[in-house]
Amino acid sequence: MITCIGAAPGVAIGRAFVLPTWEWDVPDQKMDVVDLTREFERLTEGIHTSRCEIEDMKKEVKEMVGPEESSIFDAHLAILEDPVFMSEIKGIIERQYKAAEVAVKEAIDHFVTMFDLLDDEYMKERATDIKDVGNRLLKHLLGAPEIKLPSDTQPYILVAKELSPSQLVHLNPQHVLGIVTLIGGKTSHSAIMSRAMGIPLVAGLEGKREEAFQTGELLVIDGDEGVLFIDPDEETQRVYADKQRKLQRKKEQLQLLAEVDAVTRDGEHLTLAANISSLRELETSLKHGAQGVGLFRTEFLYMDRSEFPSEDEQFDVYRRIAQRASGQPVVIRTLDIGGDKQLDYFALPEEDNPFLGYRAIRISLDRPDLFLTQLRAILRASAFGDVRVLYPMISSVDEVLQAKELLKRAMGQLGDRGEAYNADIPVGIMIEVPAAAAIADLLAEEVDFFSIGTNDLVQYVLAVDRMNEQIAHMYHPYHPAVLRMLRMTVNAARDRGIEVSVCGELAGDERAIPIWLELGVSKLSMSPQSLLRVKHRVLNTSAAEARDTGRQCFRLGRSGEIERLLSAYVTPVR
Amino acid sequence: MITCIGAAPGVAIGRAFVLPTWEWDVPDQKMDVVDLTREFERLTEGIHTSRCEIEDMKKEVKEMVGPEESSIFDAHLAILEDPVFMSEIKGIIERQYKAAEVAVKEAIDHFVTMFDLLDDEYMKERATDIKDVGNRLLKHLLGAPEIKLPSDTQPYILVAKELSPSQLVHLNPQHVLGIVTLIGGKTSHSAIMSRAMGIPLVAGLEGKREEAFQTGELLVIDGDEGVLFIDPDEETQRVYADKQRKLQRKKEQLQLLAEVDAVTRDGEHLTLAANISSLRELETSLKHGAQGVGLFRTEFLYMDRSEFPSEDEQFDVYRRIAQRASGQPVVIRTLDIGGDKQLDYFALPEEDNPFLGYRAIRISLDRPDLFLTQLRAILRASAFGDVRVLYPMISSVDEVLQAKELLKRAMGQLGDRGEAYNADIPVGIMIEVPAAAAIADLLAEEVDFFSIGTNDLVQYVLAVDRMNEQIAHMYHPYHPAVLRMLRMTVNAARDRGIEVSVCGELAGDERAIPIWLELGVSKLSMSPQSLLRVKHRVLNTSAAEARDTGRQCFRLGRSGEIERLLSAYVTPVR
Repeated sequence: MITCIGAAPGVAIGRAFVLPTWEWDVPDQKMDVVDLTREFERLTEGIHTSRCEIEDMKKEVKEMVGPEESSIFDAHLAILEDPVFMSEIKGIIERQYKAAEVAVKEAIDHFVTMFDLLDDEYMKERATDIKDVGNRLLKHLLGAPEIKLPSDTQPYILVAKELSPSQLVHLNPQHVLGIVTLIGGKTSHSAIMSRAMGIPLVAGLEGKREEAFQTGELLVIDGDEGVLFIDPDEETQRVYADKQRKLQRKKEQLQLLAEVDAVTRDGEHLTLAANISSLRELETSLKHGAQGVGLFRTEFLYMDRSEFPSEDEQFDVYRRIAQRASGQPVVIRTLDIGGDKQLDYFALPEEDNPFLGYRAIRISLDRPDLFLTQLRAILRASAFGDVRVLYPMISSVDEVLQAKELLKRAMGQLGDRGEAYNADIPVGIMIEVPAAAAIADLLAEEVDFFSIGTNDLVQYVLAVDRMNEQIAHMYHPYHPAVLRMLRMTVNAARDRGIEVSVCGELAGDERAIPIWLELGVSKLSMSPQSLLRVKHRVLNTSAAEARDTGRQCFRLGRSGEIERLLSAYVTPVR
Repeated sequence: MITCIGAAPGVAIGRAFVLPTWEWDVPDQKMDVVDLTREFERLTEGIHTSRCEIEDMKKEVKEMVGPEESSIFDAHLAILEDPVFMSEIKGIIERQYKAAEVAVKEAIDHFVTMFDLLDDEYMKERATDIKDVGNRLLKHLLGAPEIKLPSDTQPYILVAKELSPSQLVHLNPQHVLGIVTLIGGKTSHSAIMSRAMGIPLVAGLEGKREEAFQTGELLVIDGDEGVLFIDPDEETQRVYADKQRKLQRKKEQLQLLAEVDAVTRDGEHLTLAANISSLRELETSLKHGAQGVGLFRTEFLYMDRSEFPSEDEQFDVYRRIAQRASGQPVVIRTLDIGGDKQLDYFALPEEDNPFLGYRAIRISLDRPDLFLTQLRAILRASAFGDVRVLYPMISSVDEVLQAKELLKRAMGQLGDRGEAYNADIPVGIMIEVPAAAAIADLLAEEVDFFSIGTNDLVQYVLAVDRMNEQIAHMYHPYHPAVLRMLRMTVNAARDRGIEVSVCGELAGDERAIPIWLELGVSKLSMSPQSLLRVKHRVLNTSAAEARDTGRQCFRLGRSGEIERLLSAYVTPVR
């Protein structure tokens, strides 16, 4: 048994298939001057084929996994258009009379060495991307075959040094029971995609096993516990097969809850809505019994394209979501780019601290043309269902007033065109900047509802970037300061009689239920995957007891104490 | 008259001296194989001379201007050691048999073109640095003379496209009355240094004047208003000469206040202390009547070196400051690196959002070896004056308890060595993370004093990076959420009977006086340059009236309203 990193949950039992590394020999031979034109043509053709391949993968990932994951490929496409990389390759062909594949190989080596030397994480990532794209280009120039995974054998557990997104996208979950990667961890691209695809993955094996993995070895992996067994005895196999069956049964039982209301044992109703980015996710949510859409992230409509989506394109998506939600509320959040989200066709300034920068409503108010287009599309959809509009990253009353002014202007424009819309469309704001929580009473005077974004709120209140591994241990959603900010916000909403819901990751954490009950928050919006799990927990909760626990949390001064109390009260259901 | 950007305050009247651009012709000739060794020697020598020059400039800037400004040169020194840049140069000499100067010129061109193409601000800055350093190296290889500014003529107004820090450092304020730069703005390196050197500067002239500036033209510049006159009439010259005299007189009058107490017209005492980074700044502070040191930023002891300062080195500086302060309090803040401050010899991880990252107390608690060394040095100095210790970036009770535990351990170590220290040394924390303000009551139970760092507090509460020009207009110290956070902090301190002072930039802003009086903050710590100006304002303030204005501010919901009210009450004294 080897202890490693459980990076995607679930148990897999099967024989190993070890993936060979992707590298070719490139014979270094010079050529005649007359061949120059041909080499340039081959290069152009190789680039074209590579681009098509990457674009296909991106589309595939977008559909299979999700739009967020598919953006991984944008960096790869950018390299194929990078003038420096390309002029380096062309220079080697032209000046040194070398074949296209030799030039590509030398350019890769040159940049990878150079970027590695710079000792700069940003540069090192570029080096990895260049290697991945360069190898793809090489493959086409050499006419090398794509390494095919066996599909005619028994399903297997895939073992690789690391898997690139391009490799993962071609995995067939029918054939791949689980994945073992020697390097990587919980936050690697492969981990994110495996989780989305539902394939168990353990990582970080490097240096933990002396001999190399062999194709055909029997393996058992557990992505929850983070363990790997090589040639396990029958008892171990039996134990894990049991565990696998239990997980499967649990999943089926949870599915039965889809049609049940989320009511505590003592009769308190909670509303569980979904955070979605696409129509596809709406379907999953409805299958899991979501009561409407608490957060529709519109930025994904703006990604993977070459220009801003038109009013009609946006309207079409918003209307279909509103209709499919069959009268349940659909909260549409206006564009939230910046921070860690970029658009290819809209250059945002390079920023030292993008999370403290030009993002979300700050961009929208700065670019009323874009904002009005989106507002008109949302307004038109409001004629087809219970559509509500939500502004992200609000930090002042001024911003709310400006946004409302623009909403009024959008209504005027639609009125002039004779288009239908709901003139009383509910207007809400995200509470995610500490300033917004601190002046929630003033903001509540101006809007119809609050939606608390706990991810950003925690990040800003604690000054801890949640993506930064160095300080990941400091990202404490259960910090007493966070609880107080939540209380401030909820009280302000209640005093002004406006609705308040929670849509950050904390909403999908069952341990937080006592906090919501104590605060009096009765609407939670979460990822479609969390809905049934949280509902199961609600059904097994006594509101009175939970509230008591919640009250105790508010009296504690240290995150650890609060988290321990909540964890002890609620053993997570998986 | 041309309207431009006033980047460093003050008025200058004089004749223009136009600085020529720094570029040379490099003849591209190949050489014999036998010369290779000589070219390498010449290159090594050139690098050595360049490094010495840059190090001298850095030292000079550190003394003349300040340690913060001198760190500008670190990037330049790093380039001389950059393996990629250097191996490019050596490669050209070796493989193409070119002279060292030709190789340097080609390497500069190569990197500058490449980095420019990348269309990435970070890379463009590297390109500028490479150009500056490369040109210096070229100068030595070509034996070209340094462009000397005239020193035997009448004092003049220097006109340049832009000034690099290397050029500014050689300016003699005796000869240079003022500066005009065609590009740049308020936050450029030249602006920062000019302000520190007290030389008026106007910038952003590009495209505002059709013909070129001529050496010998009569100019008048006003760095407060941001205006430039070319060949002004006698009346204009008289008006600005008057203004110049008035500014000088005001300065002399303010100096007379150094020995006066900071008391409002109706008898309320305020304590005005200084924020300093060096002994030199302590001298300025004392000359300006500072009542002790409210903030000693120790990070500057750690900069401009090749290794961490030893306990004895630190002790020596802390002791001298404690003694020179003659019994007045000296608050020593422990190391605050990370964010935008780096050390050459201590590699911090590359971070996407360094202000939300690994910095200050987070590093100290992670590296108890470094922290204990600093704590022992501070403790030993506490035997020589009223020394207090201050922890930056505190966001939880846990951190305070850990820091206190380590302080106790440091005391134990000194006890074992028989060293003297103040066992009751007051322990304080910075309130600059929103979480700290929100749990100020809990934190107040654990410490002896709070020091509010308004710069970071505003930045985190509003989620606005104050260095980011794109959103600079959103950085509102007078945001109602900030005022409420201040109130929370001050009330918590008062309820627990501990001292609270303010040490951010807001402390040096006279408009904030009504806020401090209303809150009951009576100790402010500010830059040495602000002390007399703020004191002058205090002496002309009625505490009762100011408090009334302060109270009104707390009832307003929008930053603009608050700022207008404060500005109307207090017309700034300059």
